[in-house]
Amino acid sequence: MVNNGQLTIAGLGPGDLDQITPAVLQALLAADDVVGYFPYVARAQALLAQSAPAGSRQPQWLASDNRVELERAQQALELAAQGRQVVVVSSGDPGVFAMASAVFEAIESAQAPQAERWLALDVQVLPGVTAMLAAAARAGAPLGHDFCCINLSDNLKPWPVIARRVALAAEADFAMAFYNPRSQSRPQGFVRLLELLRAHCEPERLLVFARAVSTPEESLQVCSLAEALPEMADMRTVVLVGNSLTRRVGPYIYTPRYYGDVDGKAP
Amino acid sequence: MVNNGQLTIAGLGPGDLDQITPAVLQALLAADDVVGYFPYVARAQALLAQSAPAGSRQPQWLASDNRVELERAQQALELAAQGRQVVVVSSGDPGVFAMASAVFEAIESAQAPQAERWLALDVQVLPGVTAMLAAAARAGAPLGHDFCCINLSDNLKPWPVIARRVALAAEADFAMAFYNPRSQSRPQGFVRLLELLRAHCEPERLLVFARAVSTPEESLQVCSLAEALPEMADMRTVVLVGNSLTRRVGPYIYTPRYYGDVDGKAP
Repeated sequence: MVNNGQLTIAGLGPGDLDQITPAVLQALLAADDVVGYFPYVARAQALLAQSAPAGSRQPQWLASDNRVELERAQQALELAAQGRQVVVVSSGDPGVFAMASAVFEAIESAQAPQAERWLALDVQVLPGVTAMLAAAARAGAPLGHDFCCINLSDNLKPWPVIARRVALAAEADFAMAFYNPRSQSRPQGFVRLLELLRAHCEPERLLVFARAVSTPEESLQVCSLAEALPEMADMRTVVLVGNSLTRRVGPYIYTPRYYGDVDGKAP
Repeated sequence: MVNNGQLTIAGLGPGDLDQITPAVLQALLAADDVVGYFPYVARAQALLAQSAPAGSRQPQWLASDNRVELERAQQALELAAQGRQVVVVSSGDPGVFAMASAVFEAIESAQAPQAERWLALDVQVLPGVTAMLAAAARAGAPLGHDFCCINLSDNLKPWPVIARRVALAAEADFAMAFYNPRSQSRPQGFVRLLELLRAHCEPERLLVFARAVSTPEESLQVCSLAEALPEMADMRTVVLVGNSLTRRVGPYIYTPRYYGDVDGKAP
């Protein structure tokens, strides 16, 4: 029996429906099932309501709560293994701290009889505009030179790993993007991050607090490390930290393409 | 006199027209002038040919050669300062090793009388799917945990800066994305990068060579660091390097969301 089921993991971008690629729209139009966290399923519904031809068949909408990524991935894999066209929706890009890794983790940890069926599936990842790129675009070009990207959710790794990475990133003079800086269940993580940044970077270092970029709740705040306060970040904020050369030009901030003397030494 | 000129710096994504956001299409439809490197202007033309309503007014197409980013930015700023709707097109995301930083650099370095007029402009950056996200999506989810992004063009910074960043990134156990790994004018840079990676990472470390992703010339190669050869990369390739936990599952590679014991030590 040929199984034509397909699993597509699609990135819905930062929030604005106009930031969703046509490739993702086409996948949603062809879907039997759309699986995801409640607000992302709602975003996919809004996109289809705006863009689907009148009278289009609606997919089955399967929304679930946060923090059940692995169960959601297993549900989607099982539906696809039954021969259905399944789209898992993620915010931003599915490969950056989102559903793509959860799906591959579910495939890897599957037991017989699922293991063989899931491994045989055609899995496609459709990229999207991840939050740090949307945030950087609003601020100017703070990620215009080498940078790194760190998830502060400390339910994914121990704090010492985060602390060590931040220290090494500062030593490398990377610009930095921090996802999931703060939540009610772990309000101290971002307080500790600011302490760490202050230990490794100069007080004039520029930061961007970009909240819910491209949505009606968007807010953007640019300040120096000395001025930064923990309450500037919540779970919908991405925090960008410039490198040592990042600077203001008019209302924008940007990081130069050049770094040091190409014939000689670092700055 | 009110100047309604606007400068939009738009990301065209990795290559496929279906990976260009509707926000970028709208900016192109409203443009008086479209400014960019030849192949990116051609991509914008192809998009309008496919998507613009019949009989739409064509913008002025201003294509220029590679390595004249600053002149191109100045040309675009000057047109916008004359009250025109100008779109500068970049491949991928304009904020990642592309035109956004060049535009802010041009504003910053402007002399009177341009300086004041250019600073007064409304500059908008429209994000796009940057090459590393498109490459990662094709391979699975190799950037599913903390990662960094390094431009290997050594006309932008001295080699010792690159070498130091790679060593620190390996120590931090970041996954890594390398842009512009190789060109005819500097074939040795990528040879040196492989030597550096071999000094800091185990031979089993997984690499992705992703060339021209989402275009008809696309090719994708996954191999271990031990198997990697310099000729696997050219100027149209993005090279992804997994972290120490990145692994294969079926035909895909992915990096787990979790790292170490969240209650204890790193792996």
